[in-house]
Amino acid sequence: MSKLKELEERIKKDGRVLGEDVLKVDSFLTHQVDPELMAAMGQRFAEVFADAGITKVVSIEASGIAPAVFAAYALHVPMVFARKSKSITMADELITADVFSFTKQVTNHVSVSKKFLTSADTVLVVDDFLANGQAGGGLIDIVEQAGATIAGLGIVIEKTFQPGRQLIEERGIKVVSLARIAAFVDGEVKFAEADA
Amino acid sequence: MSKLKELEERIKKDGRVLGEDVLKVDSFLTHQVDPELMAAMGQRFAEVFADAGITKVVSIEASGIAPAVFAAYALHVPMVFARKSKSITMADELITADVFSFTKQVTNHVSVSKKFLTSADTVLVVDDFLANGQAGGGLIDIVEQAGATIAGLGIVIEKTFQPGRQLIEERGIKVVSLARIAAFVDGEVKFAEADA
Repeated sequence: MSKLKELEERIKKDGRVLGEDVLKVDSFLTHQVDPELMAAMGQRFAEVFADAGITKVVSIEASGIAPAVFAAYALHVPMVFARKSKSITMADELITADVFSFTKQVTNHVSVSKKFLTSADTVLVVDDFLANGQAGGGLIDIVEQAGATIAGLGIVIEKTFQPGRQLIEERGIKVVSLARIAAFVDGEVKFAEADA
Repeated sequence: MSKLKELEERIKKDGRVLGEDVLKVDSFLTHQVDPELMAAMGQRFAEVFADAGITKVVSIEASGIAPAVFAAYALHVPMVFARKSKSITMADELITADVFSFTKQVTNHVSVSKKFLTSADTVLVVDDFLANGQAGGGLIDIVEQAGATIAGLGIVIEKTFQPGRQLIEERGIKVVSLARIAAFVDGEVKFAEADA
C-alpha cells in the first residue's frame, strides 16, 4: 500500500488548483520543501521497494531531488540526479534523453554520466509528478540505455487523468505513487484509489 | 568547530582536481549524491546554528538542494530553494537576483516567491560551493530584499583562494564551511584551517 496519508492531507490543505489540470504544491514540494514530509516519502518508497535489490535511486533536477535523496537515504544507496544543462566539470561521457516540460513549455536535454549508471545497477526512478510521463519516460530511457535494471518508478503525485502511467506501464515498468489525483472538481482535489 | 572530517576524507578520496581551480565532486555531491554524507552535513549545520533561531533554510537549485534539505530536516524548519527559471505555476510575486556561474559561464536570474520569505524569518543560507561568492551573494541579496534576518551562510566546500568568503564577510554575514580548500598542489587537495 503506497498511499501516504499525510501527503494527501497536505495536498488538500496546501495544494492549489490552477485552471483545468495544474496543481501547485510549491509550499511543500516544488519550491518550499517540507523535509519531514520528504523523509516520510523516502521511507515509504523504501518500504515498497525493500525487496527489489535497489542499488541506486535516479531522479531529475530540481524538484525530484528532495524526495529522491530521502528515498536513497532510507534505502542506503546513492542517488543520481539527471542534469538539464552541461557544466564544464561534466566532460565525461553522458547518457542523454530529451524531456518536454508542459509546465515550462521547453524541451530539456537531460543527461547522466555513464560512470554513475551501469548494467550492474537496479534502479528506482523517483520524480515529483507523473502527468504526461515525459520526465519519468526520459529517465527510464536513460536507465535503459545504461543497461541497468529498472525496479520501478516512484512518484510523489500522480494525475491519473493524464496518460503518464499508461505510457510507463506499457513499457513493463511498475509505477508506485504516494498520492493519486483523479480529478479537480471546482478547485478541489479528488483522489483516486491508491496503488495496491 | 564546523569541519566535517568524513567530508574532507571523501574529497581526498573521490574529488578530482581539474586544471587550476576546479574540484569535481560529482561522485558524491553535484551529480551522484551520497545521502548519508548529506545527513551528516545537515546535522553539522544544525549543530553550528542550533541557537540562532533559524526559521528557514534557503538554497538554490540544483546542487544546493540535497545538503540544504538535510540541514532543514535537522533544524526542523522548511527549506526554500531559489529557482533558475520561471514555471507557469510560479506566477506569484518574486524576489529575484542575478547570479553568474563561472563553471557554466551563464548568468541565471534566480527567484524566490515572496510568500515563502518574510521579515519574520531568520535564515540559514546553504550552498554546495563558495568560490567567487556569486550564488551565495545572490541568495543573500534575496533574503535581504525579503527583510529577513540572515543567521549565516553554510557552505559544503569553500575554496579559500577565491574571493567569495571575503565578499560575504564584508557584508557582515557569518560564513561556516564544512571543508575549506587552501590550494590544489599537483592535483592534490590541500585543506585550510577549519572555521572556529
